[in-house]
Amino acid sequence: MSHRVYLDWNATTPLRPEAKQAMTAAWEFSGNPSSVHTEGRQARRLVEDARTAVAAAVGARPQDVVFSSGGTEANALALTPGLRRGTGQPVQRLLVSAIEHASVLTGGRFVTGAIGTIKVTGAGLVDLDHLRALLAGEPATLVSVMLANNETGAVQPVSDIADVVHEAGGLLHVDAIQALGKISIDIKRLKADLITLSAHKIGGPKGVGAVVLAEDVQGLEPLLRGGGQELGRRAGTENVAGIAAFGAATRAAMAALGADAARLEGLRNQLEQGLKQTPGMIVFSEAVPRLPNTTLFTVPGLKAETAVIGFDLAGIAVSSGSACSSGKVQPSHVLAAMGFGKELAQGAVRLSLGWSTSEADIDLTLEAWRKLADGLLRGERRNTA
Amino acid sequence: MSHRVYLDWNATTPLRPEAKQAMTAAWEFSGNPSSVHTEGRQARRLVEDARTAVAAAVGARPQDVVFSSGGTEANALALTPGLRRGTGQPVQRLLVSAIEHASVLTGGRFVTGAIGTIKVTGAGLVDLDHLRALLAGEPATLVSVMLANNETGAVQPVSDIADVVHEAGGLLHVDAIQALGKISIDIKRLKADLITLSAHKIGGPKGVGAVVLAEDVQGLEPLLRGGGQELGRRAGTENVAGIAAFGAATRAAMAALGADAARLEGLRNQLEQGLKQTPGMIVFSEAVPRLPNTTLFTVPGLKAETAVIGFDLAGIAVSSGSACSSGKVQPSHVLAAMGFGKELAQGAVRLSLGWSTSEADIDLTLEAWRKLADGLLRGERRNTA
Repeated sequence: MSHRVYLDWNATTPLRPEAKQAMTAAWEFSGNPSSVHTEGRQARRLVEDARTAVAAAVGARPQDVVFSSGGTEANALALTPGLRRGTGQPVQRLLVSAIEHASVLTGGRFVTGAIGTIKVTGAGLVDLDHLRALLAGEPATLVSVMLANNETGAVQPVSDIADVVHEAGGLLHVDAIQALGKISIDIKRLKADLITLSAHKIGGPKGVGAVVLAEDVQGLEPLLRGGGQELGRRAGTENVAGIAAFGAATRAAMAALGADAARLEGLRNQLEQGLKQTPGMIVFSEAVPRLPNTTLFTVPGLKAETAVIGFDLAGIAVSSGSACSSGKVQPSHVLAAMGFGKELAQGAVRLSLGWSTSEADIDLTLEAWRKLADGLLRGERRNTA
Repeated sequence: MSHRVYLDWNATTPLRPEAKQAMTAAWEFSGNPSSVHTEGRQARRLVEDARTAVAAAVGARPQDVVFSSGGTEANALALTPGLRRGTGQPVQRLLVSAIEHASVLTGGRFVTGAIGTIKVTGAGLVDLDHLRALLAGEPATLVSVMLANNETGAVQPVSDIADVVHEAGGLLHVDAIQALGKISIDIKRLKADLITLSAHKIGGPKGVGAVVLAEDVQGLEPLLRGGGQELGRRAGTENVAGIAAFGAATRAAMAALGADAARLEGLRNQLEQGLKQTPGMIVFSEAVPRLPNTTLFTVPGLKAETAVIGFDLAGIAVSSGSACSSGKVQPSHVLAAMGFGKELAQGAVRLSLGWSTSEADIDLTLEAWRKLADGLLRGERRNTA
C-alpha cells in the first residue's frame, strides 16, 4: 500500500514502541499474578509497576488505581450507586452531560429513572446553571463529565464543575479517556472523585483501562466478582502484558506531553487555517479550550460518510464523529446536544493528530480536501445556486 | 536463574509462539475495528478471523461467539436471567455445582435468593439425583456446570447433565475454560446452551475470553453497554491483538490436541506413580475421568502453602488448589464440597502439565518431592507416632 496518513488518533492510537517492548518483555513471565511461586511474583511485579506509573500520571496513589479491560468497563465500574466520600452521603442518582461517551450515557449501574442529563452550550461546555438547578434540593448525586470531548476536543472547566457538585454534597466522575496524554491531568487539581482512563488512546494496547479513585472515595462495588484481584474491586486474572504496556505507554506519554502538545497544536492550527479556505467552513468548539490535536469541522452540504470514504481513497484515515460504535451512520449526539441540526450533525468530519503526525501529513490532507471538497460540495452548490 | 520447572499450567499457560506472532502482526494494524477507513477494516478482519477460529474449535457459528476480557467476564455475562432457547421459557433461577469457579459461584446477574447449589460426589462429579430434585416443579432454570474442574481435573458427564436440565425446561451453561485445548469440545455433542472460554489457558494472552452460544439461544443481555460491538452483546473497543492471538492459539491448540493429550497423560501417570511411593498419598478424583494434564494430591499432614514454597525454592512452580484469587490461604471449596475435611482440603497440591513439560521435568519434580516430603511430613509423623 502507498503512504497512508493516519488522522484518527482519537479513535485509537498506534502502539508506542515502549508499549511493544513492555509486552514482549512481559511475555517471558508466564505466571499468574495471584500465584505465590516465583513466576507468579514476577507477573505481580509487572502489574504493580504499571499501577505506580498510571497513578503518578494523574497524581493519585497506586492503591487507588483499579485496572479494567478498557474505557467502557472503567466507566461502567465507576458509575456505581452508593459511592461516597469519607463519611458523606452515598450517591443515589446520576447526572451525565449530554455529550458524554455512549458508555457513560448508559448510566452504568444506575436505574434509568435515577439518571438525568445536563445540557451543554453551543460551544460544547457544560451549562453550569443547568447543573446547579438539577442538583438543588436533591439527594446526593454522582455527576459525570468528561475532561475532553472525543469529537470536538472541547475541554471542560472540571474544577469549577467539581465545586458546584461538591457544594451540593455530590461526587464527580471525570472521564479523562480522551484527555490523557494530550493535556496534563491531576486528580486533586481537577477536584475529581473518580477518573477513568484507557490505554489505547495514549499508545498502549486496546483492552486495558483504569478507574482511579480520590483518596477518600468509598463504595466502589465490583462489576466483575469471584476473585480477590485489584483489592477485591475487579475479579479476573490480570491482563499482565497489557497492563505492563499501559504503564510503559503512560510513562512515555507523560515524558512527551509538553513538547507533543505544542507541536500538535501548531500542526492542527495549520490544518484549520487551510480548511478555512473553503467558504462556509465550521470548526466546532473553536471558541473554547480544546485538545491540541483535534479538529471537528463541516461545511453545509457535506456528507460525513462520503467524506470519510473520499479521504480513505486518497490515503487518509479520518473519522465521522465517534468511531466507538458499530460503523453505523448516525448524527453525532454531541453536535445535536450543542444545538446543531441533523444536517450539520451528520456532516461533521474529525481529524485527530498524534505524535507521528508530520507537516507533510497536513499538506497531503489539505491537498486531498481541496480535491474532495469540490466534488463533495458540488451537489450542495447546485442546490443552493 | 537456574532451570525452572513450570507445573502450574492450569493457573496460566505460557504464550504459544503462534499467539506472539499474531500479536506482533496485529500491532501493525492501528485502526479501531469500528472505523470505516482502511485501517479500521484491517483491524476488523483480524477480529473476525479469530472469531471463526474460536467458533470452529467448539463446533459453533462465528456469529455466536462473543469476545470478552477473560473467563471471569465471560462467566458474568453468561449467567444472565432471561436467557431462553427459541420460544422456550426465559430462565428465572440459577443452579451452580458446588465445585464451580468463584466467578460462577457469585451467580452473575442472578439475585442471591435465586441461586442454588448442586452437590457433588466424593469423586467430584455432579450429583445427578440432587440436580433432578432441585429442578423438579421449579420455573425455568439455568444450570452451570464446568466441563473440567481446574483443581482436580475431573471431567463432568455434561451431555447427561444437559439431558436432565433440558427435560426440566432449563438451559445449561458449561464453563469450558479449563477443558479447552486439553480435551475436545463440541457445543452440540455436549448439548450445552452456552459455553465460556479463556485464551490464557491455551497459550493465548491473559485478558481475553469468550461466551459461545448455541444456535437458538436468545436473551444474552450485555454486561458492558454503550457501543454496538460484538453485535450489541459487549460494548467497548475490541482487544484486537489479544483476540487475534486467541484465534491463533486456538488453531495451534486444536492442531496439537490429540498428540499433546496422549503425551501429557503418560507424563502425568508417571508423576502419580512416583508420588504414590509416599505412604498415605491421596490423588483426588482419580476414580473418574480427568483432564490428562492434572494431578491434585495430598498426604495427611501436608501443608499446601509450605509445600508450594518448598517446591518453588527447589525450582518448581506448583499451586495449592485454585490460584485465581488473592494468594490467600483458604481451604479448597472444591475439596470441601467433595466431603474432605479442612485439614485435607488445606493440604492439596496441584501439579498441572503443558506442552513443553518434559520427562526430565517429571523426574526433577519427583526428586524434589522425595527431598521435601521428609521435612514437610516430619511433624505429622512425630504427631502420629
